This record gives sequence, structure tokens and C-alpha cells, in this order.
Amino acid sequence: MDAKEEANGHSPNEITCTAAVAWGPGQPFSIQQIRVLPPQKLEVRIRILFTSICHTDLSAWQGQNESQRVFPRIFGHEASGVVESVGEGVEDIKEGDHVLPIFNGECGECTYCKSKTTNLCAKFRVDPFQSVMRNDGKTRFLTHDGKPIYHFLNTSTFSEYTVMDSACVVKINPEAPLNTMTLLSCCLSTGIGSVINTAKIHQGSTVAVFGLGAVGLAVILGAKRRGASKIIGIDINDDKRIKGETFGMTNFINPRDQTLVHEKIRDMTEGGVDFSFECAGNLDVLREAFLSTHDGWGLTVVLGIHPTPRMLPLHPMELFDGRTITGSVFGGFKGRTQLPLFADQFMNMEGLKLEEFITHELPFDKIDQAFELLLHGKSLRCLIHL
Amino acid sequence: MDAKEEANGHSPNEITCTAAVAWGPGQPFSIQQIRVLPPQKLEVRIRILFTSICHTDLSAWQGQNESQRVFPRIFGHEASGVVESVGEGVEDIKEGDHVLPIFNGECGECTYCKSKTTNLCAKFRVDPFQSVMRNDGKTRFLTHDGKPIYHFLNTSTFSEYTVMDSACVVKINPEAPLNTMTLLSCCLSTGIGSVINTAKIHQGSTVAVFGLGAVGLAVILGAKRRGASKIIGIDINDDKRIKGETFGMTNFINPRDQTLVHEKIRDMTEGGVDFSFECAGNLDVLREAFLSTHDGWGLTVVLGIHPTPRMLPLHPMELFDGRTITGSVFGGFKGRTQLPLFADQFMNMEGLKLEEFITHELPFDKIDQAFELLLHGKSLRCLIHL
Repeated sequence: MDAKEEANGHSPNEITCTAAVAWGPGQPFSIQQIRVLPPQKLEVRIRILFTSICHTDLSAWQGQNESQRVFPRIFGHEASGVVESVGEGVEDIKEGDHVLPIFNGECGECTYCKSKTTNLCAKFRVDPFQSVMRNDGKTRFLTHDGKPIYHFLNTSTFSEYTVMDSACVVKINPEAPLNTMTLLSCCLSTGIGSVINTAKIHQGSTVAVFGLGAVGLAVILGAKRRGASKIIGIDINDDKRIKGETFGMTNFINPRDQTLVHEKIRDMTEGGVDFSFECAGNLDVLREAFLSTHDGWGLTVVLGIHPTPRMLPLHPMELFDGRTITGSVFGGFKGRTQLPLFADQFMNMEGLKLEEFITHELPFDKIDQAFELLLHGKSLRCLIHL
Repeated sequence: MDAKEEANGHSPNEITCTAAVAWGPGQPFSIQQIRVLPPQKLEVRIRILFTSICHTDLSAWQGQNESQRVFPRIFGHEASGVVESVGEGVEDIKEGDHVLPIFNGECGECTYCKSKTTNLCAKFRVDPFQSVMRNDGKTRFLTHDGKPIYHFLNTSTFSEYTVMDSACVVKINPEAPLNTMTLLSCCLSTGIGSVINTAKIHQGSTVAVFGLGAVGLAVILGAKRRGASKIIGIDINDDKRIKGETFGMTNFINPRDQTLVHEKIRDMTEGGVDFSFECAGNLDVLREAFLSTHDGWGLTVVLGIHPTPRMLPLHPMELFDGRTITGSVFGGFKGRTQLPLFADQFMNMEGLKLEEFITHELPFDKIDQAFELLLHGKSLRCLIHL
């Protein structure tokens, strides 16, 4: 649906468009008309062309924890689009630019943004409690009768138009294909970035990847391109074997066939892998991932989201075995600084098979069906056309 | 007491000498005559001149966990001495050499020793369950009537003579004063090494040190020498303030005066320290140490021993705040390779005030008194003269 300016008393720049609004935990999405207010100072309004769904949307939609029980809300954070208009003070982004939303923003001015050691921004980092714009503490989405609809993860891409802080908008090469670029907005950057920025794996490294969803497969893709000598994929779904091999996995383990996965991995790798990646969001899996690394130097990178009250199932004395554990958000990328170049590199890489990530495509009004596919492990990424 | 060779049917090289034997958890030491067998292949027999006591000896003596309930046993691992004789195949150490025992050995030949990334040795790393020599699975200590007395931490220095694998013996400059060099055998290397090898702290870093025993004070000393701009010491004993300041501490916090130490530290350091060191062996303290670092880049190094069934009190999602936690054994030093040079550097450093670490000195037969002093927090290090 095209945007239209309304003349019924609202701001002339207000847009009415279609969005998929979540009204309560686990409830079917309401595909409805909403009002999208104009971007304010340092904000950008974007026409979303493609969005996909990741497990973070799924768990938020299900309301798995406290921070996620804010409704009505517009979810969605992995997307691509074109700038419709910009607010006061936005100078590096203009109408018509091709952009990716990033849930982990970069203001460029805080202590964190100025540090080379982190991609967390003081102001625009991931905050599941944040559901309004930071300028004025209000939403830019309204129902027809003027009630607020809340934002999600700085992005809210399940809408034909969304408003975001410019710190969370990355301008990319206009020649880049927006359908596959959508994946750089979350899963590909998270997975590949964790390999190159967080783990910094080197030629010949051995790697284990726990959980072969889109992020896990992106880790495999990244490890393969960095010259890993052995890439072991672990998933309870045997169907993931072929997918993993497509991206460079050399060995596959189904935990249902093995009592202790870490012992099997240690046997396969003379004592353990150099790097393991936990992409399953499960603490028992996390422990296996930790123990599957080589003592003395093994690094475990946690990528999975763990909405559980349980603490880390690691004993303090286990730290003395020389294994390290760390987390990675958005693959360690400083989005606005690094992502444009990363997107360019992606455009020009041979044999990436990015289309293998997009297992399904659906129109916007079938978004419930896209959620069902992910919920039942039937899709990697379902690309939704807006 | 001097060694004497016996002629009553034992090997001619057997030595009878005095040792402090622990016969059961927490029982007073028995200062008694024992038989020390000759060193076998690649082993070294050492005349111990000085030994001190660290909390690891204390908790093992108390039998705080399963691995420590092996009796009779000779404890002690922080010491210095002179080589009395060497076994077959020992080529780089000879009679009369001045040496330090190291509980974390270095065989020089395993995958770990050949890796630059770890100081854990496949064969001679710390193993609290190890209580016999690796050559033949037997002890080199016997009671008068031939019953075995067990080894501890590759070292067993509470004896006038001990036998160790040569992988655990470091030859140092004969001009180095053995009394203060004793501290390099454990606490000073652990503390200073954790600063330079594990944390690799840099000029201007901010640092928090939790627990101002000998290891914590060594961390302060190391941080000061590396140019840390702020060094905050935390201890429940106010008397530690002066000691900490002696070595370079700039601020002191007594947790009894503060509800949340990490909030106080964040206030003092614009969001948290760059590095925290946990030297208290307490999990609640460990959590405070973790939270006292700056999110985005903070590193917590665990040095305390945690004989508890409790797991790490950290939530998996806290890893996404960009804080890292790791452990450090023997300060990350590869003992045989790096310690001789470190000892040389120590000899020639000005203003180290190493004598400040040695708060008490006692003869060997007063070892119970030395344990009491440590148990009640009255000593940093009590140097025992053998």
C-alpha cells in the first residue's frame, strides 16, 4: 500500500499504512491500518521493503519474559528498506537511500562508540525494555483513534513504514540487492561477525557450532571463509546436515545419538575445538559448547538468547582450565561504521549461496504463517515482502 | 638438621630428615623423621631452605574437598632451596643449583607447552588428586616403617628434603636472595603474572582488587608497575588499607561500609574499572568483581580458589554486556621458560618492598603457629626457616 498524507487534522506528514500489530502474547497478528508520525530530531522514517523473522521476535511475541510484555507492539528487526523522510539534524541519510535497520545502534559520540573494544552504544544498545522513542519518550505509531503502539528493539519493521533513530539506520550501496541484504540486518552479521570480530578465528582453526539455525549457519559460513580446518555442526534435527554442508560444515553430530557431545568432539579434535559457538539459547547446550573447546585456550562465544532464570551452569574452578566464555551482540560490528563496507564485500563475494538462507517467501498478510514456520523449525528465514 | 645417609638396609642414597606431616584434616602437624627416597628418572631431590604457607595449603590441610582428603601427606608449595641430587636424564639442573619449586610444571614437550597461549602442561599442571610421583605411581616419602606419605601439588615443601619432577623445578640466579625469592614460587608470580600475562593491563588502566592477601597485594604491585591510573583495593579488614597503599593502591573500600561495592566502584570510575581481580575465593565477591568492571570491555580475572559446590553466580545474558571473565593459574607464567628471567628482573628492581609481604618468620617446628596466623588473617606470609 502506498503512503498517503492525511488531511483530517493530523500533521501533514503523518502516514497511514499497514502494520502487523501484536496485541498480546502469542496472539495472531492484527494486519491493520496504523498512523506513523513524522520523524523528529535525528530520526528517520523508512519504507520497509523486506523483513524476516528471527527467534528474538518469536520469544518477544510469546512474551517469554517481563520486558517483552508491552502491548500493543510492532515487532520485527531484520529488514531492509528505503528512506522516506528524515528529521531535523540528519545529514548523512536522505530520502531515497537504501538502508538496513540495526537493533544495536551507534551514536558515534559516547565513550563506548569511541572505544575500539566494544560495539555497545551507551544510548542505542539493545534494550528489550525500551518501547518508545528516546527524543520524547513517546511512540511514532498510533492506532486510528490515537492510542500508542509500542516500538521494539529500536526497529519495529513489521510495518510498511517505521520511524527509527538515525543511530540505528545504516546506509548501504544502492546497487545491493535488498532482498538478501535483509539478512545483514541481523542473522548474517551476528553469525559472521562473531567469527571475525569476536572470536577472530584464524586459518586452520577447529570450530564447533551448536544449533544450526540461520545464525549457526552464518557462523559456519564465516568460519569456512576464514579457513577453519574443521567445522563441526551440532543439531537435534538431522535435516540440518545437508544445509550445514552447503555452507562448509565438515562434520555433523546429532546429540540424540551421543550421550556426551563434548567427549565426541574432543575425540574428533585431539582434545577439543579452538572455538565453539552456542546458537541454541539453551543452557545445557551452552555447557556442552564450553566443554567441547580445548582446555588451555578454547573460547566459547554465546550467541543464543537465554530467557531463563537459571544462572550459568559453570563451576568457578572450571575457569582455571584455561577456557574462556564471552558473548557477542550483532557480531561485534559497529553498525554504522562497519556495516556499509561489509555489505559491499558481500555483494562481491562468489559462491555465498545466501539464497540458501531464505527458505520461504510470503506476502505481509501471511506473517502468522511465517511465525508458524519458524516456531516449528521448518524455515531458516522466511522473507516477507511488504 | 643435616641429611645423613643411612646404612640399615635402605638404598645408600636414601635421606632421613625432618618433615611436617599432616595425618588428618585440621590435625596439628607431626614434626617427625621421614625417609626420602632418591630421585628417579627426570626427578630432582631438593634441600628446602625456606617455605611459606598459602591459602591452598590451608584449605588442603583442612580437607575442604574430596581431593584433599589423602593422608598422611606433606603439604607446602611456596618455597626455595638447593638441589641435593638429580635423577637419570636431568641435564639442565645439577647439585648445588638454587631452585624454586613450581606447582604448575612445564614438561616443554606437550601440545600445551608448545602453544604460546597457555601455561597449563598436559602432564604437570595443577592436579589436587595427584599424590604420587608420575614415574611409578609411588611416593618418595616413607614413614620410618616404610609406609607411604603422600605428595601434594607436585611440590611438598614442608620437608627438609623433597623429591620433585624436574618439570616442576626452576633454576634461578644463585645470587638471588632465597628468602624473598620464595614468594616467586607462588603468590608474587600468581598476582603479578595475572596482571602482565593474563589481563595484560596497560598504562592508565583502572583496576579493582578484591581481597588483599598476599596475592591481591601482588596484583596491586603489578598494576602499579604497569602504570595503572587507579587501583582500588577491597577488603573487609581495615588493617589492609595501609598495606595496600604501601604497594600502590589509590583507593580502599571496606564492603562492610557499602551495600553494593560495584555501584561504589562504578561511581568512582565513570562506569566501572577496566580490570578486576578476585583474590578472595568467595562467589559473592566474584559477582561484585564482575559487576564492578566497565561494560563493553571489562575483564575479571579469577585468582581465588573456590572449594564450593555452587556454580558461577552469573546469568548467561550478562555475557552480552561485553564483560569477560577468565581464570589465571600461576599468573599465566610458563614456569621453567619465563620464571628465571622474571626472578632476575625482581633482583634488580628498586623499591619493591618485598619484605612487606613477609610479616612473620618462624622456625620449622613452629609451623602450626604459622598456620594459625594465616587462618586468623594475622599474617600475609610467614617465612618458615628449615
